[in-house]
Amino acid sequence: MKDLSSSRPTPSGTRDVLPDEMTELRQMTRAMLDLVLAEGYGEVRTPTLEYERTSASTLGPKPAYRLIDEHGDGLVLRSDMTVPIARIASSRFADAEGPLRFSYLAPTWRRVKAHRAEATEVLQFGVELVGGTEEDPAVEILSLLGRVLEAAGLKDWRISVGHAGISQELLNLLSLDEATTTACLGALQAGDLVTLRELLPSQSAQLLGLSAQEALTLRQPAASVPESYAADGTPAISSLLDLIGNLPSDVQARTIVDFSLRPEMDYYGGIVFEVYDPAIGRALGSGGRYDSLFDISRPGTVAIGFGLDVERVHEAVAGEERGEGLTT
Amino acid sequence: MKDLSSSRPTPSGTRDVLPDEMTELRQMTRAMLDLVLAEGYGEVRTPTLEYERTSASTLGPKPAYRLIDEHGDGLVLRSDMTVPIARIASSRFADAEGPLRFSYLAPTWRRVKAHRAEATEVLQFGVELVGGTEEDPAVEILSLLGRVLEAAGLKDWRISVGHAGISQELLNLLSLDEATTTACLGALQAGDLVTLRELLPSQSAQLLGLSAQEALTLRQPAASVPESYAADGTPAISSLLDLIGNLPSDVQARTIVDFSLRPEMDYYGGIVFEVYDPAIGRALGSGGRYDSLFDISRPGTVAIGFGLDVERVHEAVAGEERGEGLTT
Repeated sequence: MKDLSSSRPTPSGTRDVLPDEMTELRQMTRAMLDLVLAEGYGEVRTPTLEYERTSASTLGPKPAYRLIDEHGDGLVLRSDMTVPIARIASSRFADAEGPLRFSYLAPTWRRVKAHRAEATEVLQFGVELVGGTEEDPAVEILSLLGRVLEAAGLKDWRISVGHAGISQELLNLLSLDEATTTACLGALQAGDLVTLRELLPSQSAQLLGLSAQEALTLRQPAASVPESYAADGTPAISSLLDLIGNLPSDVQARTIVDFSLRPEMDYYGGIVFEVYDPAIGRALGSGGRYDSLFDISRPGTVAIGFGLDVERVHEAVAGEERGEGLTT
Repeated sequence: MKDLSSSRPTPSGTRDVLPDEMTELRQMTRAMLDLVLAEGYGEVRTPTLEYERTSASTLGPKPAYRLIDEHGDGLVLRSDMTVPIARIASSRFADAEGPLRFSYLAPTWRRVKAHRAEATEVLQFGVELVGGTEEDPAVEILSLLGRVLEAAGLKDWRISVGHAGISQELLNLLSLDEATTTACLGALQAGDLVTLRELLPSQSAQLLGLSAQEALTLRQPAASVPESYAADGTPAISSLLDLIGNLPSDVQARTIVDFSLRPEMDYYGGIVFEVYDPAIGRALGSGGRYDSLFDISRPGTVAIGFGLDVERVHEAVAGEERGEGLTT
C-alpha cells in the first residue's frame, strides 16, 4: 500500500479545493449560471478529451496535454470550450435557425511557462452566441458579461475592448513597407514600446490627430474617445465606436477602449475584450468574435462569446472584500 | 480552417450533453448535493490529472488514459474520487480529529472493453466518511444513500449489500485445499455457477443449513435472512447481519443481502454494496469500506463511501417515469 500523505500531492499547476472555498465557489457559479440560463443560454457539457483534429492548434489555444487513444487517434485535454461548442453548433444544430445561445461551467487546460506557478487546469464559466441577432451581438454579450460579474459579487470590474483589425488599420494609414508593418505588429503584441518607437517613421507621423505611437497604443475610458477617430479607411475603429455607443450606460462607464488589444486566440477576429478588476493583477477572462470557426460549416455565421476564469473571479471578489486595489 | 461538422465528433465512450438534458442533470445533482451538504459532507474538487504513483492500480481501478508531464512523471485521468479524497484526508487533514465528511460531483475515467459502447468518461456523485463515528458508519452511509436516491427522483431503488470476507469465510468452513478455494473464489467472481458446482465437494456439503452452493450464492431480501446464519467462525456474516439490523426500516425494506457480492476495487474490504433500479439493467453505483487506504497515513482509520453514476441515475429516473421495470 502506498503512502498517500506525500509532500507533492498534486501535479504542478493543479491543486485541491477544500470545502470552505468550494462552498463559496459553488455559490458564486450557481448565481452566474442561473442568470445566463434565465437569459436563454442553455448549459452544455462536452467530453474532457477532444480529437486533436477538432481542437487543433489552428483552431484554439495550444493543448497542454496530448495522448493517443486505442485507435491511434490523437486526443487532447480541451483547451477551451469555444471550439467544442462551435463543433456542437456545426453538427447537432447544423440546420437550426439562429441565434443559438449556450453556456458552460467546465475545466479547461492550458500550457504554462515553467516556474510561473500558473494553473494548468482552469475552471471556466462562459457563454457563446452563435448566429444572427437583430442588434449587434457584442452589445448583448458585453451587457450580459457585466451582469454576470455583478452576480459573481464583483463591484469594481472593468472591461477593456478592442478590435483585432485596428492595429493593422492604423499601420496601413502610415503606408509602411510590409516588413516594418509586421515588425510593428510584433512589437505591439509583445507590448514592446521601445521597439515600436524605433520602427515608426518619425515623431511627426500623425494618425487621428495623435502621434502614431499614441494612436497605436491608445487606452482610455470609452466615453472620452472622440467619434472623429472613426474615419474613411478605418472600419475596425468605426465598428468599435459604434459598439461603445450602443452599450448600456452602466457597462459603458466600466469600459476602456484599447486600440492595442489583440486576440489571445487565432480564431478571434473583430471585436475582442478582456475583463479586469483592480483587486487582481491579471485578466479575469476574455472574449470576442470568432466567425471564422464557421467558415466551412455555417458560412456567414456571426459568433461571439466570453469565458471567465472562475477561481480568479473568486480571488478578485475576496480581494475587493479586503479592500485591495480599490481606486475610489 | 478545419470542418467542425465531422461525422465522428467526439472520442469513443464520450458524448455531448445538450441543454434540455443538461437542465435535468443540473437540477438532479443540485438536489443531491444540497442534501449531503446539509448533512455536513463538504464538497471538494481535486485535479483531473493525478500522479500515477498516487492513483496506482494497486489503489484504485486501472486508469483509462496515461500521460507524461514535463518532469517525466506519469499522470493519469483520475479513475475515481475515493483515492484523491483519501489523499486529501491523509495530507491536508492529517491531524484532524475524525469523523471527516466529504462529497463530490466530478468526472472520472474508466477502461472499457472494446465495442461495448460504454462510457469512458463517467460523471460521478458521491460521499466519503473517514474516521470514527459512534454508530456503525455503514448505517450512516446507507441511510444517506437512500435519501440521496430519493432526492434524485428515484422511487424503486434497491441496495444490494455484502461483505468482502463472506465467500472466503464460507469456503473456510468447508476446509477445502487452497487451490480449490482460490478456484471457487474465481468462479464466484465470474458468476460461473457451473464451475462452482463442479468444484464444491458434493451436494451434501452444508453451510448454515443450506447447500454450500446456496450459501455461497445467497441473495435474498434483508428481512428474510435468519440471524442464525451468524455463527462462530463467521465474523463477516455477523457484521453484515448486525448492519442490516441497525438500518432504518425504510432502507432495510429496499435492501437485498448478497453473500456473493464482491468488491469491484481492490481497496474495498468489509461491507460492500451496489445500487440498482429495475428500470435499468446495470448498477447505478457502488460503495463500501476502504480502511486499507489509510494503513500507512492514518492506521486504524475506518473509511466508507459511495459513488453514483449520475447519468445512469438520470436514465433510471426517466425509465421509471416511462413505467419501465416496475414490479408493483
